[in-house]
Amino acid sequence: MEKGTLLYEGKAKQIFETNDEDVVWIQYKNSATAFNGEKKADIDGKGVLNNKISSLLFSKLAEKGIQSHFIKQISEDEQLVKRVRIIPLEVVVRNVIAGSLSKRIGKEEGTPIQKPIIEFYYKDDALGDPLITDDHIDFLEIATREERAEIREMALGVNEVLQGIFKEAGVTLVDFKLEFGKDRNGTILLGDEISPDTCRLWDAETNQKLDKDVFRRDIGSLTEVYSIILERLGGNKLCTK
Amino acid sequence: MEKGTLLYEGKAKQIFETNDEDVVWIQYKNSATAFNGEKKADIDGKGVLNNKISSLLFSKLAEKGIQSHFIKQISEDEQLVKRVRIIPLEVVVRNVIAGSLSKRIGKEEGTPIQKPIIEFYYKDDALGDPLITDDHIDFLEIATREERAEIREMALGVNEVLQGIFKEAGVTLVDFKLEFGKDRNGTILLGDEISPDTCRLWDAETNQKLDKDVFRRDIGSLTEVYSIILERLGGNKLCTK
Ligand SMILES: Nc1ncnc2c1ncn2[C@@H]1O[C@H](COP(=O)(O)OP(=O)(O)O)[C@@H](O)[C@H]1O
Ligand SMILES: Nc1ncnc2c1ncn2[C@@H]1O[C@H](COP(=O)(O)OP(=O)(O)O)[C@@H](O)[C@H]1O
Ligand SMILES: [Mg+2]
Ligand SMILES: [Mg+2]
Repeated sequence: MEKGTLLYEGKAKQIFETNDEDVVWIQYKNSATAFNGEKKADIDGKGVLNNKISSLLFSKLAEKGIQSHFIKQISEDEQLVKRVRIIPLEVVVRNVIAGSLSKRIGKEEGTPIQKPIIEFYYKDDALGDPLITDDHIDFLEIATREERAEIREMALGVNEVLQGIFKEAGVTLVDFKLEFGKDRNGTILLGDEISPDTCRLWDAETNQKLDKDVFRRDIGSLTEVYSIILERLGGNKLCTK
Repeated sequence: MEKGTLLYEGKAKQIFETNDEDVVWIQYKNSATAFNGEKKADIDGKGVLNNKISSLLFSKLAEKGIQSHFIKQISEDEQLVKRVRIIPLEVVVRNVIAGSLSKRIGKEEGTPIQKPIIEFYYKDDALGDPLITDDHIDFLEIATREERAEIREMALGVNEVLQGIFKEAGVTLVDFKLEFGKDRNGTILLGDEISPDTCRLWDAETNQKLDKDVFRRDIGSLTEVYSIILERLGGNKLCTK
């Protein structure tokens, strides 16, 4: 497989074409951003950690029958994935109240949620990724009712499997964000990444935050806690050089 | 019917008990508020205008078979209504993009909406009445799935009738907010008020704003435009003294 031209660059990853038009080459970056890009930093080792954790989680999901865009990890900070047209929705699954939902509905962080809450945010940096409802999605023609139902089912399936994986690792899966895309045939595939950038992960015993909130809230070392996650998931230790 | 003790006072109305425990006495106030109470003013004549317009609209809805809490207007600024336990949802129906939805999804004010958009906001001043989704409503146990379906149907029915009424009056019904409550038997009833405080109303020819946006945006006299609405609906002219 050959790395082609840069297709686009996001806040956390670069996406390159390859010589196979159905495959793209993802390079994880070291940049950390929060609050819609207002807070930024370059953190050595972050790209490698997220690439390893994301590759590991997509592999474990595949073992449990949940397919995604993931093909394989090809270097410390790169992976090959199936090319999709990303549906501009950030699909958030919540098992415990935290972050913006805590503020929105006035419930304390840490409150358990019996039936997982799924939220759709409109993936649009200029608008600040606002929460939207089914009626908004219909109006914007982002996804049909049937596609939303399929995405919800897939998100709940991912949640089931991830909850199991993290439970074994002594970690509470508080919430996480997924992105879905459509391949050339219109099939909906799980895309993007699953990492401590996109999940809230708390130590199951101490509730220590082991995710991007340490960066958002300045309460710890990002690479330290991401390394703990990688290790607990059975991944190899961080090797920055 | 006798006016009893003040039950509670909101931003726009006072609610009194009566000698019938299933009936409350609403007194419309002259206070105008916007941006969750940040902007405030006392505007002579506002209470009378809103009471008259709301009474008139509830009567017209009843003629078209849409029941509400409304019993009758009893003075310039008072009405009797059936007492309900208000469901803490602000149910917004939209026919044209405006206000917060314009900002949320990045569509210009004035963009028509083919299939009306219904939104649920959590009626909680301390939280700033946030937009919430079905999953949030489930979690908060505000209304069951069946109740939401009923509320949606009722809101769409109200929209149909109001659109007809306002069209005849040369006014575009851009959007409006409804509140619903449950009576002693658990029956869901349309409650609260329908007035230029709770509707966006634009002149059908000129798009002149004939609603609370003149106060929110400082672009005209509130009583002047509310009087236009009352007059166009066939109500009597404002008589403040
Ligand atoms: N399989 C894929 N095919 C094409 N694009 C993808 C795929 N997976 C993720 N992307 C997109 O790659 C872009 C770069 O990722 P990222 O840096 O995380 O962007 P963002 O700044 O939007 O979070 C995003 O727009 C993401 O949706
Ligand atoms: N039929 C009814 N029975 C009981 N309460 C009602 C009824 N209709 C409206 N209310 C409530 O009366 C209160 C006062 O109204 P208002 O001044 O508009 O309040 P707010 O400041 O919440 O907008 C509100 O809480 C409203 O929900
Ligand atoms: Mg991203
Ligand atoms: Mg009110």
